[in-house]
Amino acid sequence: MKLRFYNALILSEVGKEIFSGEVCTDGDTITYIGTEKQDGKFDREINLCGNLIMPSFKNAHTHSAMTFLRSFADDMPLNDWLFKQVFPMEAKLTPDDVYELTKLAALEYFSGGTTAAFDMYFHPDSVAQAAIDTGLRLVLCGAVSGGDNKADYDSALSRLEDYFSRFNSMHPLISFKMGFHAEYTTDISILKGIAELAKKYKQPLYTHNSETASEVQGCIERHGMTPTALMESLGMFEYGGGGFHCVHMTDEDLEIFKRRGLWAVTNPCSNCKLASGIAPLAKMNGMGINLAVGTDGPASNNALDMFREMYLASVLQKVRENDASAMPADAVLKATTTGGAKAMGLDDRSVLEPGKKADIVVIDMDRPNMQPVNNIVKNLVFAGTRDNVKMTVSNGVIVYEDGKFPTLDAEKIYAEANRIIAEKKTD
Amino acid sequence: MKLRFYNALILSEVGKEIFSGEVCTDGDTITYIGTEKQDGKFDREINLCGNLIMPSFKNAHTHSAMTFLRSFADDMPLNDWLFKQVFPMEAKLTPDDVYELTKLAALEYFSGGTTAAFDMYFHPDSVAQAAIDTGLRLVLCGAVSGGDNKADYDSALSRLEDYFSRFNSMHPLISFKMGFHAEYTTDISILKGIAELAKKYKQPLYTHNSETASEVQGCIERHGMTPTALMESLGMFEYGGGGFHCVHMTDEDLEIFKRRGLWAVTNPCSNCKLASGIAPLAKMNGMGINLAVGTDGPASNNALDMFREMYLASVLQKVRENDASAMPADAVLKATTTGGAKAMGLDDRSVLEPGKKADIVVIDMDRPNMQPVNNIVKNLVFAGTRDNVKMTVSNGVIVYEDGKFPTLDAEKIYAEANRIIAEKKTD
Repeated sequence: MKLRFYNALILSEVGKEIFSGEVCTDGDTITYIGTEKQDGKFDREINLCGNLIMPSFKNAHTHSAMTFLRSFADDMPLNDWLFKQVFPMEAKLTPDDVYELTKLAALEYFSGGTTAAFDMYFHPDSVAQAAIDTGLRLVLCGAVSGGDNKADYDSALSRLEDYFSRFNSMHPLISFKMGFHAEYTTDISILKGIAELAKKYKQPLYTHNSETASEVQGCIERHGMTPTALMESLGMFEYGGGGFHCVHMTDEDLEIFKRRGLWAVTNPCSNCKLASGIAPLAKMNGMGINLAVGTDGPASNNALDMFREMYLASVLQKVRENDASAMPADAVLKATTTGGAKAMGLDDRSVLEPGKKADIVVIDMDRPNMQPVNNIVKNLVFAGTRDNVKMTVSNGVIVYEDGKFPTLDAEKIYAEANRIIAEKKTD
Repeated sequence: MKLRFYNALILSEVGKEIFSGEVCTDGDTITYIGTEKQDGKFDREINLCGNLIMPSFKNAHTHSAMTFLRSFADDMPLNDWLFKQVFPMEAKLTPDDVYELTKLAALEYFSGGTTAAFDMYFHPDSVAQAAIDTGLRLVLCGAVSGGDNKADYDSALSRLEDYFSRFNSMHPLISFKMGFHAEYTTDISILKGIAELAKKYKQPLYTHNSETASEVQGCIERHGMTPTALMESLGMFEYGGGGFHCVHMTDEDLEIFKRRGLWAVTNPCSNCKLASGIAPLAKMNGMGINLAVGTDGPASNNALDMFREMYLASVLQKVRENDASAMPADAVLKATTTGGAKAMGLDDRSVLEPGKKADIVVIDMDRPNMQPVNNIVKNLVFAGTRDNVKMTVSNGVIVYEDGKFPTLDAEKIYAEANRIIAEKKTD
């Protein structure tokens, strides 16, 4: 499929000047960005009428299949929510369920301008298949955990090595990054094994890191240091990686992130809704720490909406730092686009540039919340909503346009999700 | 115009059970809500296909015409923003400008499911005319201020009395509530005069109250007490009223609000973005203080989006109180609908009920962020966006439907707003 977008405002990369011009794609690849009229044969030539074309959002931490628990159990203490509601329901999920529920997440990603997700969940084969079938670029994150015994150790390590080789050669839309669930769910022996595996394959490592104060306190009690310091002491970051959440970070933790070039993936909505805290994002940004943004799972958010994450990523810092200039819009927009792509190892989708993969969102400027046009980047971060997503192109395919999903049967996917949650409730 | 909405899910009032049925209107009034099929002659019969019909949002504190400064000057220290950017630009506004800019706000209100606004701004005749011409229910709030001299006193008091009588007999879409800008911009002599006027007309009084810590500190230095305590000591609340923002409130302040039945109108997005703080909303809710929600002006937000306010109104409390059960969804949805209406004196638009005015929003459930349907109220507050607004009915008129404004020329309004800001920039 060859596409030509003309009469476009183009933001090829956050930080570069927005200009009027054209963008062309051929198959999964961007072939042209510039001001000249492109001739030739295209399957579709789309007049953007002055709307904005820009890199799509990259959701750098999520548990997609948790769509089924959206608004299932909210406004309750964290431990009741997790242990009495979430875990028992998740235990009932089959691989087929996870496949269907991930497809629902894909609809939400696409309709919100997101084309790639860094996903950590059970049944990764089902997650991967849903991504392939919907056209979502999915990076699976290793989620192993386990206790102090040989069976857990063997299982965790063999699974990680198996997934690493298998998912990285499965399909162009799928890749796998080594990772584990969290320090507090993983015995130190397994952590050491993971560190060795990362070194063996020269791979970055990712995990939930310092999401709650009690998690950090527990790690200090167990190991005499914070999760970040512990992982650094185990040599886990020799080839980089990152942490999801990063809410409760010491200065030493931040120094480690900076020195190792690690990605701090912030999840501001989830961290508020679950009362985890507000990450020191402005401080990290000031230090030059690599930043990306994720939604976390839809059960703890309750949406997969990068616009809302952007808004909170900025304004929570302003109130946290008591400084209305903290965490400016451009830093946030960069973290949700280029930052997310790089955090997930998707440098080929980080910006709009000939040769890069065609992961694109078209923003409808012709809406009241985007008018007047004083500053487009600030409008996107401070006034934008998923309502402004006019079109989403994932890997060169138009997967969302004017409220519709041309390649997917949304009604069927909604029905499956409702069937699954109804079944689990009555099980 | 007689309308019939059928195959609807109906939330007539927050707290009541959602049921399947029909809603009918005749002119500006709701004539039927129930489960029976309504026959008769209608101008339009609309199959809602299972979508949700509910009371529209009421924006209980805003400065609508500030649309022109949306994304004009963000990410800067508060005083630079206010004194170097906002005030000089506002000083250039003509009545015609305010008329056009308020119309842009009306588009944003309608497309986000809001049909009434409690507006405080210059040139109130222009604001009122824009509301009448767009079909928005507008409550003007007195915004007088002034120093320690007879001219200011006379001007403030005569203006307030004039506006009160004139705007309350102008048009069914317009009303006026007595109020003043804030304690810190109004001399004590004028505050006393306003208190007398409120008593004379047995009227509630509204003002910006305790938005920033420095405002409260300044009041304590000037008068030896907080703004709330000062106003109470002046007898300003004998007939009720309310405060906008209410971020920095003492226990005594909260007791006054509770005892007097005052409305605390929270503005969570603006309070974060301007680094003012997080209001003690959960505490107020627990005390049974009357709550409503507003956006504040679009220059300090930067949107007029009640979905985003709802989300922040809840999740900021969870993180503030370190309690994921704080400020539940139903309390927030009630504050944005029934609460807002009552705060503005619009009891006739507070809920869906025969005899009440037809201020209605239809929520599109057929979107990924509303699926599966575990809990509609929690979906609205925690996952909803303006993208879910399928139709808005203001005063019995369909003012927004499927992305379009059937009664308004949006393109012309956008062009005017862009012309105005361009002019002011080069003045």
